[in-house]
Amino acid sequence: MRWNGWGDPDRAAELPFAVRSLLPLLLGRIRRPEPAVALADVRLSPSAFTSEDADVFAAVLGVDQVRTDAESRVRHAGGRSTPDLLRRRDAVQAAPDAVLQPRDHDEVVVCLRLAAERDIAVIPFGGGTSVVGALDPERGGHRAVVSLDLGRMSGLLGYDAVSAEAVLAAGTTGPEAERLLAQHGMELGHYPQSFRFATIGGFAAARSSGQNSAGYGRFDTMVTGIRVATPTGDIELGRSPGSAAGPDLVRLFLGSEGIYGVITEVRVRVHPVPVERVMESWAFADFATGAAALRAVAQLGNGPTVIRLSDEAETSVSLAQVGKIGKALARGASVVTVFEGDDVAARRARTAGLLQAAGGTSSGEGPSEDWLRTRFDGPYLRDALLDAGVFCETLETATTWSRLEGLREAVTRALKSGFADAGRKAFVMCHVSHVYPTGASLYFTVLAPLGADALAAWDGIKHRVGDAIMAAGGTISHHHAVGRDHAPWLGEEIGETGLRILAAVKRELDPEGIMNPGAVLGAATPVPARAAGA
Amino acid sequence: MRWNGWGDPDRAAELPFAVRSLLPLLLGRIRRPEPAVALADVRLSPSAFTSEDADVFAAVLGVDQVRTDAESRVRHAGGRSTPDLLRRRDAVQAAPDAVLQPRDHDEVVVCLRLAAERDIAVIPFGGGTSVVGALDPERGGHRAVVSLDLGRMSGLLGYDAVSAEAVLAAGTTGPEAERLLAQHGMELGHYPQSFRFATIGGFAAARSSGQNSAGYGRFDTMVTGIRVATPTGDIELGRSPGSAAGPDLVRLFLGSEGIYGVITEVRVRVHPVPVERVMESWAFADFATGAAALRAVAQLGNGPTVIRLSDEAETSVSLAQVGKIGKALARGASVVTVFEGDDVAARRARTAGLLQAAGGTSSGEGPSEDWLRTRFDGPYLRDALLDAGVFCETLETATTWSRLEGLREAVTRALKSGFADAGRKAFVMCHVSHVYPTGASLYFTVLAPLGADALAAWDGIKHRVGDAIMAAGGTISHHHAVGRDHAPWLGEEIGETGLRILAAVKRELDPEGIMNPGAVLGAATPVPARAAGA
Repeated sequence: MRWNGWGDPDRAAELPFAVRSLLPLLLGRIRRPEPAVALADVRLSPSAFTSEDADVFAAVLGVDQVRTDAESRVRHAGGRSTPDLLRRRDAVQAAPDAVLQPRDHDEVVVCLRLAAERDIAVIPFGGGTSVVGALDPERGGHRAVVSLDLGRMSGLLGYDAVSAEAVLAAGTTGPEAERLLAQHGMELGHYPQSFRFATIGGFAAARSSGQNSAGYGRFDTMVTGIRVATPTGDIELGRSPGSAAGPDLVRLFLGSEGIYGVITEVRVRVHPVPVERVMESWAFADFATGAAALRAVAQLGNGPTVIRLSDEAETSVSLAQVGKIGKALARGASVVTVFEGDDVAARRARTAGLLQAAGGTSSGEGPSEDWLRTRFDGPYLRDALLDAGVFCETLETATTWSRLEGLREAVTRALKSGFADAGRKAFVMCHVSHVYPTGASLYFTVLAPLGADALAAWDGIKHRVGDAIMAAGGTISHHHAVGRDHAPWLGEEIGETGLRILAAVKRELDPEGIMNPGAVLGAATPVPARAAGA
Repeated sequence: MRWNGWGDPDRAAELPFAVRSLLPLLLGRIRRPEPAVALADVRLSPSAFTSEDADVFAAVLGVDQVRTDAESRVRHAGGRSTPDLLRRRDAVQAAPDAVLQPRDHDEVVVCLRLAAERDIAVIPFGGGTSVVGALDPERGGHRAVVSLDLGRMSGLLGYDAVSAEAVLAAGTTGPEAERLLAQHGMELGHYPQSFRFATIGGFAAARSSGQNSAGYGRFDTMVTGIRVATPTGDIELGRSPGSAAGPDLVRLFLGSEGIYGVITEVRVRVHPVPVERVMESWAFADFATGAAALRAVAQLGNGPTVIRLSDEAETSVSLAQVGKIGKALARGASVVTVFEGDDVAARRARTAGLLQAAGGTSSGEGPSEDWLRTRFDGPYLRDALLDAGVFCETLETATTWSRLEGLREAVTRALKSGFADAGRKAFVMCHVSHVYPTGASLYFTVLAPLGADALAAWDGIKHRVGDAIMAAGGTISHHHAVGRDHAPWLGEEIGETGLRILAAVKRELDPEGIMNPGAVLGAATPVPARAAGA
């Protein structure tokens, strides 16, 4: 992956001519920014990792698996939010003091023990695709901070054909997991936009949701078991499907983003590689009509594998299909449906009946095929936009169907007024990409002129948006998770008692507070035993 | 409900002639037991509830809502396991010191505060149908213990037609919930065998699973939000479907069986009352063939609302259809399928194709109709069996498909050898009633001559069975939950680290340890702050 952008450098996209022409119309005057710093010119904060530290960890992991060189450090300096990428453009950057690369669960256990003994914070690192600050090199009052890169822990550790379950090492990437499962004729079917780089452990730790969630569920629901190394002991969960043996503790580690320990293995349910795939696209008069149609589909059930609704703005610039951006200025709101499995014709007919009855007009396979072909390409375009002086960021939430339209309006208003107050014209697009019987997600993309103070301006706007989400009854995140960026709203989401519960578990499992300090709990992170003098 | 048996006394069944004839063939010689004690003759342990206690709670709840009379106490003395019912036959019985009947969430909050101040343990009481000892009047080192009966907290507190969500007060019974939802054309569709008496809060606290779980999911998956009163603060969870805002804390209260606080309100997803219902029954050569067929159905998906497989023993005595017990001595293993919804014909055809391909022969609607008509009647029959001197108990587990047959054999063996060592011939039946893509539940019914030492004998056999379940890779409970009876195995199920997590949350929310002491955590229950001198 590019050290300061998205994905494979060879795939980096030039901004298409059509987009370059469209942007001034949408955003007004755009200035080219200062060129980004070259990797060789980045000045990192000095490393607090001592040669003794290096020796101690190298004795366990091997010398090559303890990295303190500048490139290794800067490549683990953060995730892939737009603020992360803007920070990667600066001459001076913060980075972890070292990068550790354990080979398996047992090496992770030793790393955590040594880190706790040596007063070193640990940031678990999977694919590095967090967009909520979960990978910030925060020391949290400790002497140093290391990035624990799980990239070497990759592979299919177990496969049960009868039970349709597979055990994957946490560092296995999405494509590698699918490649390994395909050898058994199976797939996981989890395709978030981060699919090409993100890892199985990261999907679990962040409660990821993929584009096929209507068919195969959120990653939460795919997980049937986990193995976790914590600073005070291992835990293996998920003996059986459908257990009532006390609270479901798997769900306490899903979404924990490394604050309790390191998820090292994930057991998942898998299904046969689909024998058939059909798709159909639909046009609706407006977002509200389209949303009502999606609701009908979600509540009836047994519908599509993928269903998405782009609002008028997103439809108009066809950003839903990156390859066609700016080509067709469609009107109204557009819907993509994809059906995979053994009974696709019946499900397509069933869904088509509902969408038509709700006011939709079929627009054939074309737009859905375009979406499917280019669905992982959006982040490449962001790199090109930043280079051209255009700020581009995404954020997401979810709520019940009855609150969906109000939430969309509130977030759109907060984004537009926030940028207006910062002296910029913003273009805001929204889509629904995950539906449930009781509600749906909303995913926003915002474009605006970058400006020299982009980071500070966005920080203020993001806070305004977070407050708007809470006031309108949304969740602070549907699938990006909490990290550090969303921690200020977690108390409003789960209440003071909820924060106390999460902190109590943290104190129990990680009394020194070395695990990803400041993530998820933010200011509610308990004071470590050491700092408290215990 | 009968104070010492199951359900409405007017429905109490005489043992049918066919059963009376069959029992000696299955079990050998059966002696009639001593007659059960009459309610008026029960001698209760003295109440530790003082008149000051009564005055303090009466000031909040009203005099009539603080019960210390013998009948109220004995009616809250336990659940409805067979050991519970055997204990209800004794002349001397343990019971809570008082019964409190709050009217709403706020009154529950005050009850918990007063109980903590006055060193009184609290056992939340819903429908009283626990079969795992969750309602035992255990003081846990406190001065007294009260049963907190939520029966007055009944009703539909909110309904969102657009989002298909309803908020139900925790004390609402299954039938009452369905009656209230039917007024909106909706249903919950949760039909465990305890349906007629158990409550919404109890379903949540115990992670219940109903007979329609293949269609509508476990109760876990129906819950979209909860409100809980704990001794140290309220919590409301479930802002949105599909959230990634940290760990899913709803799942920490589902299955907590009152050890953290009292679930007072439950938000659930609901669906339209099904427009159609069709059913079909199937015969298989044996259990293993039938199980493989169910696996195919569960893994393909979009199948029946109900699917059940009775093993050879259960099929032979037709205990699956209580109304027909002993009538038809069918051979092989039998399967019931029921389809509800809008597309029942297609799903029935789809399922029939799989079952036929897997070796099944259709036996028409009859057996499925019989099952549906009598599905809540099993427990009534147990009362009649106990009166006739026959011990009858059920227990359940679940595991992955690949371990299912081994688990069934291990449990059957443990039951038979356990009773043999206790000098009794046992008859063991088993069915699968809940299926998942990765595994299924197993539900056992055992019959044996009662004998004078039935409680002690069963205690030893139950331990042998629990150990066998663990050794064979099963969960200690699929839907009966943990209570006190399964607590000894929870450590093996979730590990030492898992127990530490549950205990840490307990210390945080209930530092005095007043909430259902000894339930779930058993010996791992943390020492209360008071007792520890903190």
